[in-house]
Amino acid sequence: MTDDSTRELLRSRIRDVADYPKPGVMFKDITPLLADPKAFTALTDELAELAVRHGATKIVGLEARGFILAAPVAVRAGIGFIPVRKAGKLPGATLSQSYVLEYGTAEMEVHAEDLQEGDRVIVIDDVLATGGTAGASVELVRRAGAEVVAVAVLLELGFLNGRARLEPHLRDAPLEALISL
Amino acid sequence: MTDDSTRELLRSRIRDVADYPKPGVMFKDITPLLADPKAFTALTDELAELAVRHGATKIVGLEARGFILAAPVAVRAGIGFIPVRKAGKLPGATLSQSYVLEYGTAEMEVHAEDLQEGDRVIVIDDVLATGGTAGASVELVRRAGAEVVAVAVLLELGFLNGRARLEPHLRDAPLEALISL
Repeated sequence: MTDDSTRELLRSRIRDVADYPKPGVMFKDITPLLADPKAFTALTDELAELAVRHGATKIVGLEARGFILAAPVAVRAGIGFIPVRKAGKLPGATLSQSYVLEYGTAEMEVHAEDLQEGDRVIVIDDVLATGGTAGASVELVRRAGAEVVAVAVLLELGFLNGRARLEPHLRDAPLEALISL
Repeated sequence: MTDDSTRELLRSRIRDVADYPKPGVMFKDITPLLADPKAFTALTDELAELAVRHGATKIVGLEARGFILAAPVAVRAGIGFIPVRKAGKLPGATLSQSYVLEYGTAEMEVHAEDLQEGDRVIVIDDVLATGGTAGASVELVRRAGAEVVAVAVLLELGFLNGRARLEPHLRDAPLEALISL
């Protein structure tokens, strides 16, 4: 489990940026954490420990900021990295899953051959906001025949209720948030 | 330097996908490499060794696939990670640099405060194709006041002449390609 001093280090390297991406929104910017090797290493170690504890055999990272967290975890844990990308970005045969945005819908994709029955997958992203991309990713993993053993994020924005929206997709798998705001 | 067996391992995990992103193009897909922990670890070790050899104090990764390579290198080498992103994706005050596409132009951005005078930067991306994003990124780093000590890529597509287009931006810094095709 994430101890208090690690959690405090990570929290101290996330900064608020007002009015981004639009007026009235307070954006949580993780780039100061990424620029600090001690904090980025601690984050990687925490997530790798989670991946191992859940017996993951594949790490799924979500485009684009999720890539930055998930790729070091895959290397650290010695587990294969599988990208879930926005529509049209993966060159091979894909599975697609749409999800609802504030206005309209979008799609996430995975290479169909990257996940098989028997794979135990941990899905990693930086922030859980409304839970749309995380939910779509969980469905993609399951449709590929693999099992979702956990969804892990650095930061959960509790006031956006993403956890409630994600839980029907998760079934019994846990949502692991290192920090909740 | 990358030895022959490592180079062969990396090369064997890059697959050709015909007619992507458009008819007549043979796309080099690195996702099989990312899914193979042995290959991804070897790639990370090679790039981290390059970063250390060049005395880098910051690792710049280019959105989006460059994030997947650069972030584990930053953690492995214990050096701060700085994202260079497409226009509008970074929340703070940015520097912007435009570059020429086949039709029109695009922009890459970096948080202005992430790089300072005295920083020695290695820019990491997956593939050097025409060199547009790499060249723009080198200019961004320099405009922020930092020094570019190298540009490193997994794969250089020599027939696209990106090296010739990048060299005026590089000045004396080397372009390091683990594999050239």
